[in-house]
Amino acid sequence: MSLDDASHKPHERLAILLADDLTRVGDTIRARMASEHAPRIPEVTAHLIEAGGKRLRPMLTLAAARLMGYAGDDHVRLAATVEFIHTATLLHDDVVDESAQRRGRPTANLLWDNKSSVLVGDYLFARSFQLMVETGSLRVMDILSNAAATIAEGEVLQLTAARNLATTEETYIQIVRGKTAALFSAATEVGGVVAGGSDTQVRALFDYGDALGIAFQIADDLLDYGAGGAIGKNTGDDLREGKLTLPVIRAIAAADADERAFWERTIGKGRVEDGDYETALELFARHGTLDGTRADALAWSAKARAALEALPEGEIRDILSDLADYVVARLV
Amino acid sequence: MSLDDASHKPHERLAILLADDLTRVGDTIRARMASEHAPRIPEVTAHLIEAGGKRLRPMLTLAAARLMGYAGDDHVRLAATVEFIHTATLLHDDVVDESAQRRGRPTANLLWDNKSSVLVGDYLFARSFQLMVETGSLRVMDILSNAAATIAEGEVLQLTAARNLATTEETYIQIVRGKTAALFSAATEVGGVVAGGSDTQVRALFDYGDALGIAFQIADDLLDYGAGGAIGKNTGDDLREGKLTLPVIRAIAAADADERAFWERTIGKGRVEDGDYETALELFARHGTLDGTRADALAWSAKARAALEALPEGEIRDILSDLADYVVARLV
Repeated sequence: MSLDDASHKPHERLAILLADDLTRVGDTIRARMASEHAPRIPEVTAHLIEAGGKRLRPMLTLAAARLMGYAGDDHVRLAATVEFIHTATLLHDDVVDESAQRRGRPTANLLWDNKSSVLVGDYLFARSFQLMVETGSLRVMDILSNAAATIAEGEVLQLTAARNLATTEETYIQIVRGKTAALFSAATEVGGVVAGGSDTQVRALFDYGDALGIAFQIADDLLDYGAGGAIGKNTGDDLREGKLTLPVIRAIAAADADERAFWERTIGKGRVEDGDYETALELFARHGTLDGTRADALAWSAKARAALEALPEGEIRDILSDLADYVVARLV
Repeated sequence: MSLDDASHKPHERLAILLADDLTRVGDTIRARMASEHAPRIPEVTAHLIEAGGKRLRPMLTLAAARLMGYAGDDHVRLAATVEFIHTATLLHDDVVDESAQRRGRPTANLLWDNKSSVLVGDYLFARSFQLMVETGSLRVMDILSNAAATIAEGEVLQLTAARNLATTEETYIQIVRGKTAALFSAATEVGGVVAGGSDTQVRALFDYGDALGIAFQIADDLLDYGAGGAIGKNTGDDLREGKLTLPVIRAIAAADADERAFWERTIGKGRVEDGDYETALELFARHGTLDGTRADALAWSAKARAALEALPEGEIRDILSDLADYVVARLV
């Protein structure tokens, strides 16, 4: 692969550019997921980490640090920290969601058991804190421990918001920050902090990660209703699971009495019948909520690109800008 | 209650002596378990925290700091940190063990669901890291993040050691450190660190907590086989659950072929029948394993008391010494 190949997606170009750093992150992850006494730990962790994934979050940390001209080692530790936090949340999510598949493979809770997923997740959280303590930066620890709290709070919020028709747009954005944006923004922010960026630059890196994460998650929620013409295997899952995503929240806000009864039965009570998915799409079209939500995703993407203007020009900044386009490109 | 009342147990005397500090710990816990957005979090946490418990771990931090003459505020933050870590592990333990009762009340996983227990536990872990970061002490963060890793590793080890007759005494001690001693020793150690104790004093506080925790857990495991004549509601649970505790490990090591077959059927395969508990007691008596294990618990208790000799004399030291006696007093 070559960087000049325009057919490469932005995260693939980042992976090429940061290949050496990524190798070191992989080495750190392998060294730190080991447990002298409990071989179950590296088994479960390796199953998930070696299944691939795009390593997007650790790349954001590496890219932010490199963009700021960093030449030390702490960005590798922090990228591994971010990946450990992400892996721990995936393990716990699969228990919470009772998932059977992740990254095309059976989930750890299915292959081993829920117990192992809970406890190995806890181990990875603890490991991530050990790694961040090694950087010696209180500011980094503050950012990442706050992100961990926002993630857990967002997950609890998502649990209690499910099937609750009173869920507001504000709550939705908090859930999205917890699910996705909090770790994106912490990943870019700590990259800037270890590189010694100015307050303005660190703030810009936070804003980029936050807006990128929100754009990414809104796009994901739109795809579940077939946005961009894509009908994937998960299309309609959110309706069946009673998730209050932005198109639904807005359709409920605009609903007349009959429409409200439809949402109460499907989202509220979980009684989804044949044809309900198509009815949901009709209601979205009637109130323009898919178009409105798409506009929101594009606005967050634009906000992410705009944040980059405060940062040094160059190839990494260009790729990060393309990445902000890419996460919403599937919508048009 | 008065401190002079000899009928008070050591932890009750500590609670009287540290009453003001404990009130502040309670205030910190209540303030920090709040979540503006997700009311499920304080609901679940309050259910567990307000059920009582002896608050032994936060008292160990407070006592260690006060013993060293500390007059600041960080010991309160750290005591709350320690209680949050403990509460998080209880929430996750109850999911792992599929428990129905804790502290005489239905468990959170039963009252709400496993999902809430997993995610609220994660939130409390994150909160505990935020609190320790506020102390600004890298050494404290190092100690507590290591303890968190040891706890999770010990729990995974316990999971994989269950029903495994090849479990060694060394593995048992690692499990015990994970279950109990790692948080006891971190609790006392960080109390000494914030108080600015010398390396020798901090080491002595670590050794005290470590030995106290091990003595406590070995005693607990002995009580499960009716040590000290107490037949509680949990007597025999460990045999049914196939736990490799010290008396069993030693009885297996000394077993002839018939005895080994008994252990393979009961502990190994989980086929426990009427009369098996009595047979286990006979085998313990034949090989003297309950007596030997009791001697070990007393030796750890003595080690805890000995560690205190490096620390300032006074009322707190006396109570901590009595506490080391108390945790094994139920065995004789």
